Amino acid sequence: MARLVTRLTQRLGIEHPVLSAPMALAAGGALAAAVTRAGGLGLIGGGYGDGPWLETQFGQAGNTRIGCGFITWSMAKQPHLLTQALAHRPAAMMLSFGDPAPFAAEIAAADVPLICQCQSLDHVRQALDAGAAIIVAQGGEAGGHGHRRATLPFVPEVADLLARQSPDTLLLAAGGIADGRGLAASLMLGADGVLVGTRFWASREALVHEGHHAAALAATGDGTLRTSLPDIARRLDWPKPFDIRVAANAFTARWAGRDDELRSDIEREAPAYREAFMAGDAQNAAAIVGEAVGLVTDVPPAGEIVTRMVEEAAILLGETARGFLA
Amino acid sequence: MARLVTRLTQRLGIEHPVLSAPMALAAGGALAAAVTRAGGLGLIGGGYGDGPWLETQFGQAGNTRIGCGFITWSMAKQPHLLTQALAHRPAAMMLSFGDPAPFAAEIAAADVPLICQCQSLDHVRQALDAGAAIIVAQGGEAGGHGHRRATLPFVPEVADLLARQSPDTLLLAAGGIADGRGLAASLMLGADGVLVGTRFWASREALVHEGHHAAALAATGDGTLRTSLPDIARRLDWPKPFDIRVAANAFTARWAGRDDELRSDIEREAPAYREAFMAGDAQNAAAIVGEAVGLVTDVPPAGEIVTRMVEEAAILLGETARGFLA
Ligand SMILES: Cc1cc2nc3c(=O)[nH]c(=O)nc-3n(C[C@H](O)[C@H](O)[C@H](O)COP(=O)(O)O)c2cc1C
Ligand SMILES: Cc1cc2nc3c(=O)[nH]c(=O)nc-3n(C[C@H](O)[C@H](O)[C@H](O)COP(=O)(O)O)c2cc1C
Repeated sequence: MARLVTRLTQRLGIEHPVLSAPMALAAGGALAAAVTRAGGLGLIGGGYGDGPWLETQFGQAGNTRIGCGFITWSMAKQPHLLTQALAHRPAAMMLSFGDPAPFAAEIAAADVPLICQCQSLDHVRQALDAGAAIIVAQGGEAGGHGHRRATLPFVPEVADLLARQSPDTLLLAAGGIADGRGLAASLMLGADGVLVGTRFWASREALVHEGHHAAALAATGDGTLRTSLPDIARRLDWPKPFDIRVAANAFTARWAGRDDELRSDIEREAPAYREAFMAGDAQNAAAIVGEAVGLVTDVPPAGEIVTRMVEEAAILLGETARGFLA
Repeated sequence: MARLVTRLTQRLGIEHPVLSAPMALAAGGALAAAVTRAGGLGLIGGGYGDGPWLETQFGQAGNTRIGCGFITWSMAKQPHLLTQALAHRPAAMMLSFGDPAPFAAEIAAADVPLICQCQSLDHVRQALDAGAAIIVAQGGEAGGHGHRRATLPFVPEVADLLARQSPDTLLLAAGGIADGRGLAASLMLGADGVLVGTRFWASREALVHEGHHAAALAATGDGTLRTSLPDIARRLDWPKPFDIRVAANAFTARWAGRDDELRSDIEREAPAYREAFMAGDAQNAAAIVGEAVGLVTDVPPAGEIVTRMVEEAAILLGETARGFLA
């Protein structure tokens, strides 16, 4: 089995520079543990804050070393969830979508490395002020919530900022990475590793309905879009400027350009959306995936995804790279 | 001097897998020739179709081997410009933004390789039908016109499509590539080379006002956006779904969300915009750059840009890549 050594693998004491994203609802303890067992590091998705669910998921991970991630603005309404998660001594705590400053001291006191996911250079500066050990530069092609920078130019621009202001802070690339090509490319761009969502969402251990998995296997990267419609339908009060990337479906077509109408009809539409989601009806509740869905053609065990990514990247960074220098 | 060998360098008989983009107005014969002399291949931007200008630019390139590119929907109104350009026996002819089919036969008859720039998988299929020798997979982070896919996941998805349907067709990555990191990353993603715009726009040979260059040096990648406003102000009838990425400025702020009002005021606004453009007033006529502008910190000779990109990529694909495999 190939190994890729970076500052990230050394700092976190892992085999491969691959983290699975703390995907709300989809990333439970089984997925996180499978990624760690394969040599990466898995993160449980703290999501919109359900204490008992979180407890169950840490339980499912058993003794396997995993991390956890929260949606900052949502966790800020129930900060005891952070305390609860830290009690499990996670290998890392990731915060996204909101100012990490109010929570940095508690995380530091627990001696847990802080990972901050960033969508702009201002977010990076905010994360550095909060003492982040690791920055995730997330491009807008990512599945789930995000904003508009693109991974390929954003990662080196953040790398340059870190080189000037905080060279010991590590950098992960996120958004559009689903295989060894994306991993090898990210390392060339100056990242110390990758954070991967969509590819692990399409794994056996992910908490995803098979109806949604089936829709994703049929989708191409062209068939995804950023929108606020699913958040409106789920009555989630997402702050600006974030929206969510999903696979286009009958629901996004039906309500395109009609956010306000969906809000007016919410008493009827919210339960309908919820029911469709629970039933795995991918036409009426969107599969939450990024452009990388166009690179996904199966739903294997998560550990196999890690292995494939690393083996492919090792060949690219070895033989293939040498071939270009001939 | 390092060299990078790919299918592209072999097929086109060039030293480095780097093409400069056929940027309307900005990419004349001097820029194209400088890129070719440095070992890449430079393309003159046929733009919106000005026969005498095109003649002058081919003249400026002298005996240096260069290519040319057209905006397909615009050139379709004056197809004699294609004939005129082909008479100069260009090393390649690039078509973007429109169906290449009506022009493919004339280009093939001239024995000139056809390059098609694509923004979606459907565009790629259209290009293959037209017999393209080279596909450019362009991400929406690109400067100038484009659409919404992102380079990092789009390039491997197109590579997979080509592997299945047309393995001899070459693939270039475009959008967000400004240095050796972007070049090395593109090769890892499965591209045979890169097409670079913004970085060459910020070169001494580019036909760009120093006022616009100065604005670009101050801009970050966060400070660019896709919009239709500059096209409205220039009375350019761009077809859907294309819009243009530019540096945000006073003009884009003033008219944000008011496309129709700008259209109504066009008799006054069009001359004002034109005047601002000619004067290098970057607040009132936008600098046409992509997210990669955040990686641009100087305005060197174009040949130096090629050299730097290749030297940096060679180190990354050599020592740096080997280091990860340790
Ligand atoms: C189904 C899904 C749910 C997500 N939920 C969260 C979340 O709760 N918190 C978070 O920080 N990021 C979340 N993300 C974004 C990921 O952290 C990551 O940025 C993204 O998945 C990377 O892009 P990729 O999907 O192309 O791999 C989610 C992503 C997906 C696909
Ligand atoms: C100033 C400027 C003008 C452009 N004009 C054209 C054009 O006339 N025809 C074309 O095919 N592409 C044009 N493009 C897009 C390029 O072909 C290319 O896709 C893009 O520059 C790549 O992204 P980058 O700017 O990040 O390098 C232009 C780009 C810029 C920056």
